[in-house]
Amino acid sequence: MITQEAIEAAHERIKVYINHTPVLTSEAIDNLAGASIFFKCENLQKIGAFKARGAMNAVLTLTPEARAKGVATHSSGNHAQAIARSAKIMGIKSYIVMPRTAPEIKKQGVLSFGGEIFECEPTLESRETTLQEVVGKTGASVIHPFNNYEVITGQATAAKEFFEDIPAMDVIIPPVGGGGLLSGTALSAKYFSPSTLVYAGEPEGADDAYRSLKSGSIQPSQSNSIADGLLTTLGDKTFPIVRDHVKEVITVSDQEITNAMRILWDNLKVIVEPSGAVPFAAVLKAKEKLKGKRIGVIISGGNVDLARAAKLFGL
Amino acid sequence: MITQEAIEAAHERIKVYINHTPVLTSEAIDNLAGASIFFKCENLQKIGAFKARGAMNAVLTLTPEARAKGVATHSSGNHAQAIARSAKIMGIKSYIVMPRTAPEIKKQGVLSFGGEIFECEPTLESRETTLQEVVGKTGASVIHPFNNYEVITGQATAAKEFFEDIPAMDVIIPPVGGGGLLSGTALSAKYFSPSTLVYAGEPEGADDAYRSLKSGSIQPSQSNSIADGLLTTLGDKTFPIVRDHVKEVITVSDQEITNAMRILWDNLKVIVEPSGAVPFAAVLKAKEKLKGKRIGVIISGGNVDLARAAKLFGL
Repeated sequence: MITQEAIEAAHERIKVYINHTPVLTSEAIDNLAGASIFFKCENLQKIGAFKARGAMNAVLTLTPEARAKGVATHSSGNHAQAIARSAKIMGIKSYIVMPRTAPEIKKQGVLSFGGEIFECEPTLESRETTLQEVVGKTGASVIHPFNNYEVITGQATAAKEFFEDIPAMDVIIPPVGGGGLLSGTALSAKYFSPSTLVYAGEPEGADDAYRSLKSGSIQPSQSNSIADGLLTTLGDKTFPIVRDHVKEVITVSDQEITNAMRILWDNLKVIVEPSGAVPFAAVLKAKEKLKGKRIGVIISGGNVDLARAAKLFGL
Repeated sequence: MITQEAIEAAHERIKVYINHTPVLTSEAIDNLAGASIFFKCENLQKIGAFKARGAMNAVLTLTPEARAKGVATHSSGNHAQAIARSAKIMGIKSYIVMPRTAPEIKKQGVLSFGGEIFECEPTLESRETTLQEVVGKTGASVIHPFNNYEVITGQATAAKEFFEDIPAMDVIIPPVGGGGLLSGTALSAKYFSPSTLVYAGEPEGADDAYRSLKSGSIQPSQSNSIADGLLTTLGDKTFPIVRDHVKEVITVSDQEITNAMRILWDNLKVIVEPSGAVPFAAVLKAKEKLKGKRIGVIISGGNVDLARAAKLFGL
């Protein structure tokens, strides 16, 4: 089990390599939502996403011998950049398996940190086969995007910072894909702000966490949403934490995600990727239930091609 | 003369009504510029621009009798929203004279704060005539966008915060339009960080500050640039401060502004309006001279229609 001390130690360990991201508010958005909303801007994190936290913690907790052989992962994007950056900081190699359909901006990010990309088909099977081949050749340590306790512990530091900066939040809500950020957030809430309820936002077209919580076992993902960072399924390490500590998963349509994204761009003046807008879309959807509350929304990332965003916005 | 104590008092006075804006950095941008650049994000300020500071200070320093009659101004945009917001906070009326060509997003901002808009032609003459009419009818106090000591003192608080957060900057560079932010920045540098050199970024198509410094007297503006917030000319209160305390004005083309804007959007993940990208464009232009320096860039605002930005970016 991940302890409070483990999260505190991870935060100390990674602090110098990450941003303490700002919390933004907007009077216009509060009026719209009928609540006090605080936005933790992990889109302003290193590599433009919270993934910088977990990756850095995982790389820093490898033994020196393991670390010397490099690190490897498969990822649709932000985790890939995060691993490549962490490896670059430590002066080691990174090997990144990416679906050939991954957004160009995310591939460029990996390359800019000196990561070596191995393309695969956009299926879990192809990702894993390709990753095994890479590891066989290099002896690199695999750092899974979410089903890894050091990664989860690193992601938990976002909510820890958030609770330190903004006291007495009634609700905290990250997005859920594989559940790394969500389970980390849930554990930080438990240790650092036990009265705060943990919700999650999830795309309707990839609602495996919603269905997994309902059924009590991990359900496969359908993977059909504009929120490209959230198409994965909960893992055996994230599911039990989510099951035990998350109050509710709220699902939202692609149209609701796009609307939420546009409201954030226009009012907060920050660039939010579709996945990053999912929790705010969920807050707007659950408006009646959340009326008058102090709500902490985690904007998870900002890595979206501007041309793609313009298209989503109909510009 | 504006004293150090006046800037400190203004900061205390407005603190609760404004954001202490974050400072962002980017490894990719530092590599590109060959310098350490710190970005003070006044685009993440209330109303999306530094103007929230000066307007709030000016409204708060009116006598209660004057304040009760409301406030009036002419402005192409951000100052207008800032005055409307400050008036709303104080529960008084605001009367805003705006050129009919002002961006829709800026008009909507004024209306959302309950400001009353009076449209005029986009000339200084029409602005001033219309404003005189409004004042004649209402008895409101005119708060000039920049040629007003309380406004300048309020704008100075942005650089004061910046120096407190980031020590030992070699250079600080805001944009220059009418010179409110620039003269405030220059005074804060003088008092709080005297070893920091003050530069300014200005559009080539509205290079009146550049020419005024060269000639030693206020020169008229040509007013032709995508940087719609910077088309005004220095005033008799801002010019002497700029003349005495600013090392150099660096001018940039519209293409250079668009390029800089795009780099900021892509790397900082924040929305920057054309005017707000002018200082960073100037830093890139003066790359050789600024190599290896610690540079503080003020991103002055983020109020740009997304459709307009998409067009500028060729999306």
